[in-house]
Amino acid sequence: MLAGWALAYHTVGKPGKLAVISTKPSSTAADLSVAYSPGVAEPCLAIRDDPEAAYAYTGKGGLVGVISNGTAVLGLGDIGALAAKPVMEGKAVLFKRFADLDAFDVEVAETDAQALVDTVVAIAPTFGGINLEDIAAPDCFWIERECVRRLDIPVMHDDQHGTAIIVGAALLNALELTGKRLDQVRVVFSGAGAAGFATAGYLLALGAPRRNLILTDVSGVVHAGRDMPAYLREFAVSSDLRTLGEAVVGADVFIGVSAGNVLTPAMLRTMARDPVVFALANPIPEIDPRTAGATRPDAIVATGRSDHPNQVNNVLAFPYVFRGALDTRARAITEGMKLAATWAIARLARRPITAEAGFDGDGLAWGPGYLIPKPFDRRLLPEVATAVAAAAMRDGVARRELDLADYRAGLEKARF
Amino acid sequence: MLAGWALAYHTVGKPGKLAVISTKPSSTAADLSVAYSPGVAEPCLAIRDDPEAAYAYTGKGGLVGVISNGTAVLGLGDIGALAAKPVMEGKAVLFKRFADLDAFDVEVAETDAQALVDTVVAIAPTFGGINLEDIAAPDCFWIERECVRRLDIPVMHDDQHGTAIIVGAALLNALELTGKRLDQVRVVFSGAGAAGFATAGYLLALGAPRRNLILTDVSGVVHAGRDMPAYLREFAVSSDLRTLGEAVVGADVFIGVSAGNVLTPAMLRTMARDPVVFALANPIPEIDPRTAGATRPDAIVATGRSDHPNQVNNVLAFPYVFRGALDTRARAITEGMKLAATWAIARLARRPITAEAGFDGDGLAWGPGYLIPKPFDRRLLPEVATAVAAAAMRDGVARRELDLADYRAGLEKARF
Repeated sequence: MLAGWALAYHTVGKPGKLAVISTKPSSTAADLSVAYSPGVAEPCLAIRDDPEAAYAYTGKGGLVGVISNGTAVLGLGDIGALAAKPVMEGKAVLFKRFADLDAFDVEVAETDAQALVDTVVAIAPTFGGINLEDIAAPDCFWIERECVRRLDIPVMHDDQHGTAIIVGAALLNALELTGKRLDQVRVVFSGAGAAGFATAGYLLALGAPRRNLILTDVSGVVHAGRDMPAYLREFAVSSDLRTLGEAVVGADVFIGVSAGNVLTPAMLRTMARDPVVFALANPIPEIDPRTAGATRPDAIVATGRSDHPNQVNNVLAFPYVFRGALDTRARAITEGMKLAATWAIARLARRPITAEAGFDGDGLAWGPGYLIPKPFDRRLLPEVATAVAAAAMRDGVARRELDLADYRAGLEKARF
Repeated sequence: MLAGWALAYHTVGKPGKLAVISTKPSSTAADLSVAYSPGVAEPCLAIRDDPEAAYAYTGKGGLVGVISNGTAVLGLGDIGALAAKPVMEGKAVLFKRFADLDAFDVEVAETDAQALVDTVVAIAPTFGGINLEDIAAPDCFWIERECVRRLDIPVMHDDQHGTAIIVGAALLNALELTGKRLDQVRVVFSGAGAAGFATAGYLLALGAPRRNLILTDVSGVVHAGRDMPAYLREFAVSSDLRTLGEAVVGADVFIGVSAGNVLTPAMLRTMARDPVVFALANPIPEIDPRTAGATRPDAIVATGRSDHPNQVNNVLAFPYVFRGALDTRARAITEGMKLAATWAIARLARRPITAEAGFDGDGLAWGPGYLIPKPFDRRLLPEVATAVAAAAMRDGVARRELDLADYRAGLEKARF
């Protein structure tokens, strides 16, 4: 039924999900004489003389480019640029819905990493920030790094960092509930692609020691003695452990970004007390959350699915990370800005769901079944975007200094 | 005053002139489960299996990319990609206002012709059609040709062909009024850049013999014995004429796409009876239209300015050319489609301004002071887009066959 509805949703009325509208009057010849020739020459000349004027006279500063080559789309894999368009349009819908940012999608028919980077860099003047999306590992790592290096606007590959930011928030809160500390827990990853690699790196930034992280992929434990993609070497362990089953024995945290049902109940039974199980594969988690709960009633479980508690959903982060970054005209998205987002999200979940949240909390309260906020919580915008903006200013990448109290107050009142 | 107003217009409220909005519901979790994950996988898979499905499930088919590298912007010259953004946003406003097409602008920081083509081709899956804009000659010719060759969607460099289509319509009507024939008149061009070269070529398609066309540029008459850019060779004449002043003696038509005041009253006096003078340079025409009228009361004069009669304005063509091309999913914009647009525009000017025009004709009627329709004439959409769609089907480039009577009727009723 979802399939039919999903297709109908995309076709009814105007095909697709986006429209571009004019925000200024355009009904008279006089209007058009300033929107276009001859009046438009004035903002052009102002920008020629001072590129920063583009933020005053064009939509650049509030515009995110959602850019993909379609090589790793959702759970669908390499379906190509054109077939990725519904996802990228959807991402633009989410930017609008949650952060009131304009976003438009650009599908790039280019699988060569250098050529893709060159394309993104070439079209970057169009945008205030760039959300790279659904680009396959390992190329995605170099592609993002190069775009960041060559551009002075925020660029983020959301599959990596959006996931890492939310997993980080959920994990901080899960450990808080279990009385464990991130610098002491043993963490095992299933999956070492874009999300797994980026999340592992992010846990280091959050304070996890590298020695406590074990990555596994389809070939088992990423250990020093085996073949692996170059990017994984920094996480290769010297260990006799070879399989996921061996790795999870006594582990405190399981982070699955791989494939359905790879974590068996038998494996789960071997984990430490109060295990944290993030089974994020979609649509089939690494372990069914009901099975996990029945097997280990002391487990704290999160999935990537909206029909179970604790959905790890990037939409809790990317709209607000970009909002804070764009509003400060940040030159980049720093580690500090991501950490600020994680902490803001984690802290918000610990607070009661008040009227300001703008949705019916329905008995939800901070605990194992509510580790992270719900997507429609209106407090996310002021909390997370303000935290990100503050971090941008602290980290010295902001080109515009904001009065943060005013900024937060404005976001709290924003209705769109 | 215009300058201050133009800047204020661009800054008031949200900077710039465009917004991207969601056209489908996105207020509930259920909405988002089809707009994005997991439901969005369905249209993705449909497009993977049949690329044409992108026209059903995404905005591609109604979306024009307005793409520029900012090397030849309006009368401003090479101001760069970023500074061109207000013009490109303005062009998107015009697409929306006149043809209800979505358009968004992409500014490409790339001056190398091959790299620019590669970029346009790479991002083309995003769009239903591509309007190249404000790219300097001579590169613009090869760039457009390569994009057309490599893509199967409509691509048009508007500075060339939009201008040619309107000049063609105005010229057909001016000659009709003077009782002259296009295959017999002598035409002199001042300016041999993108617009001049393309318009000269287009007059050949309309039936002017090559031997009756003389191009001039800053170095004078384009004749076989002089240096010239390679693209101009096809128009080099064997002639003793060397200057614009020598060339216009006895000429029937002057087409100026060059610089202010290059056509002196003394020169105008030497032209044939009932001379046609298109002084299109902006903001200062090749000859002031009042001066031209005082010097030669028998002259028919057009300019590029909205404050004089007969404004040759590309907006009479490009929105409708793309609308007809996109609605038929044309693989390209053929010469036949451009000619159809020219004739539809010319014919519309010969008709009385009726209530269907949707604006106050204020005494305007077919004649030397009203050669071409006014931009706000609502009949342009059904007349021109239908003519273009019919030509696309005739020329075998349409991937979708329309019932033209239904199509025209729908456009006649459209209000947006």
